[in-house]
Amino acid sequence: MSTTLSDRLSEYAGVARNLGMDAVALVPGPNFTRALGHSFMSHERPFLLVIPAEGAAAALVPNLELGSWELTGFEGAVFDWRDQTGYQDAFVALMDHLRISSLAVEGQVMRVFVHHALLAAQPDLRIIDAEAEISGLRMIKTPEDIAALQRAIDISERALTRTLETVAPGQSEKQIEQTLIRFLFEEGADGLSFPPIVAAGDNSARPHAHARADYAVREGDALLIDFGARKDGFAADITRTVFLGHASDEAQAVYETVLRANLAALAVTRAGVTAHEIDDAATCVFEASPFADRIRTKTGHGLGRDVHEAPYIMRGNMAELPAGTVYTNEPGLYQIGNFGVRIEDDVLITQDGCQVLTRFPKDLQVISC
Amino acid sequence: MSTTLSDRLSEYAGVARNLGMDAVALVPGPNFTRALGHSFMSHERPFLLVIPAEGAAAALVPNLELGSWELTGFEGAVFDWRDQTGYQDAFVALMDHLRISSLAVEGQVMRVFVHHALLAAQPDLRIIDAEAEISGLRMIKTPEDIAALQRAIDISERALTRTLETVAPGQSEKQIEQTLIRFLFEEGADGLSFPPIVAAGDNSARPHAHARADYAVREGDALLIDFGARKDGFAADITRTVFLGHASDEAQAVYETVLRANLAALAVTRAGVTAHEIDDAATCVFEASPFADRIRTKTGHGLGRDVHEAPYIMRGNMAELPAGTVYTNEPGLYQIGNFGVRIEDDVLITQDGCQVLTRFPKDLQVISC
Repeated sequence: MSTTLSDRLSEYAGVARNLGMDAVALVPGPNFTRALGHSFMSHERPFLLVIPAEGAAAALVPNLELGSWELTGFEGAVFDWRDQTGYQDAFVALMDHLRISSLAVEGQVMRVFVHHALLAAQPDLRIIDAEAEISGLRMIKTPEDIAALQRAIDISERALTRTLETVAPGQSEKQIEQTLIRFLFEEGADGLSFPPIVAAGDNSARPHAHARADYAVREGDALLIDFGARKDGFAADITRTVFLGHASDEAQAVYETVLRANLAALAVTRAGVTAHEIDDAATCVFEASPFADRIRTKTGHGLGRDVHEAPYIMRGNMAELPAGTVYTNEPGLYQIGNFGVRIEDDVLITQDGCQVLTRFPKDLQVISC
Repeated sequence: MSTTLSDRLSEYAGVARNLGMDAVALVPGPNFTRALGHSFMSHERPFLLVIPAEGAAAALVPNLELGSWELTGFEGAVFDWRDQTGYQDAFVALMDHLRISSLAVEGQVMRVFVHHALLAAQPDLRIIDAEAEISGLRMIKTPEDIAALQRAIDISERALTRTLETVAPGQSEKQIEQTLIRFLFEEGADGLSFPPIVAAGDNSARPHAHARADYAVREGDALLIDFGARKDGFAADITRTVFLGHASDEAQAVYETVLRANLAALAVTRAGVTAHEIDDAATCVFEASPFADRIRTKTGHGLGRDVHEAPYIMRGNMAELPAGTVYTNEPGLYQIGNFGVRIEDDVLITQDGCQVLTRFPKDLQVISC
């Protein structure tokens, strides 16, 4: 990272001040990794970084992590705890040290047991969910962030190209998924953004389908593949829907409608657009089509260290999106029992428009059988 | 699964009754998957299954998941919500329908934003963290569970064998990690239990180290590999520590101490043993050795659908462990700035003793350079 730890902690102190809160607390996850420059696991062990509006940050660290913690260069007070004695005394010591009366937390990341431990240590502590404000610091991507995301996307697209070259009728969705995963790692992924969705036929109508081991793809199927590589802390998220052998007239009409919605969203994207306007552009295409009853999801979400993050691209979200925001443009149409189509790009908002970071072709693709 | 959805929901109703609570709530994660027989993603979207002590269960489901939800066969009331209108009205409708005054939740899984949404819908709702009781239903593994876990372990061990055959001085930790991941998927993994730990030299002293791209392993290094495949919903978790070229006298002494601790824990394992007794058996070996100051962690944790679950194998945990419990036996010694050794098996507790599900050799292994 080009910024210093001290600079980054100051940003979170600023969030606390803006909210009129005494401090911000971070737990392992994307904000914690961004703040500290290192990632940590949590599992059953509480792990907490508290950045006050004024004064020095302090941390509650599982003792076994101290050897990794020293790599962060953190210079504030550290309250460690051991498995055998438990963590509650460390929470009490941390809160005694901090002397705060209100705390802003990441509601989408912090789990209830940590919330309870904080309140057990200090029953009058006022805790608010400031997920939007805390994670908001990640919304504008730096050039380094974008370069890492582009690496993740490039790996993902190479893996998709290789996977589609191997797809043939008779393979199970699960086999295709396994092939995709193998190619992702061969192409250099550090990990997966999420378990890939490989769904054919009626399964493609389930936006978060699981690949089936007992369904063999066959001529005429839609094949929806939604996946992404992680690289250097950033997560790609791409969907393409292709057809096996041929695409029916209905499939072609649905596909062209989804593609028009995807392009309509891109057409309105520039610095200052609201999340509402992007979703509205795509959704209006759907509503004017014969397929309005197949709308199931919002148009997309922010993308970066987390695969789903702010801003959420949906009607009613009037947030104006600045240059440097990256979002997924993923309109889709889904008819349960029939099939679904989704086309998802990763889009960087620029001053004058946008840069589509995903380059995989979007024309209707039929895999020859 | 051999049990019916209705049987499984009854078990959670029983937990509520035993706790004197009106209901149990589950969110996507291992209990949710076990209860429903299908796994779901959550991300920013709340998703909730509430099982009352008496009466029918009800669910709050993101609209886009309805096509997947129908696969569960759930017959209770479903309150769905769409991205564009938000979820709070669905929480209000769910709570109006349920008419409960207290709710037991999974504190290690439920996030604060869901906790807040529940309280916003019903401010007088009493919420307790019943992680131990709810997840306790997963502690005794069925024969099907054990078979799935064994498949995950077998895949993991084949991948480790192949990986160690390729290790050579000059490779980075990151390269070795990538090789391991590739072999895991080639051997049939559905996913990774967690991002593998591949740590050599001083990095092996960090129990949750990250593989370094800029450190080449060299003769004399300890090489600690902690990893696992996921298969059919179950997570393996194995650690072996090997040495490159040669093991110093100190390394040999530490290794033999860790192995003796591992064997001491196995020697006391049988149905009815307490978690305390297992940890104590291993820890006493360490405390009687010259390396007592290198103790950093408890001896292990339960293993199943989650890679860290109850029971936690540590002094002070007086829970008696029944036959069918699976735990990780992973004593280790870590000296920051020097090296660490951990030997981790996955152990099934039986009536008369235990069955070690991991079969990878534990003798000190030196990789020829």
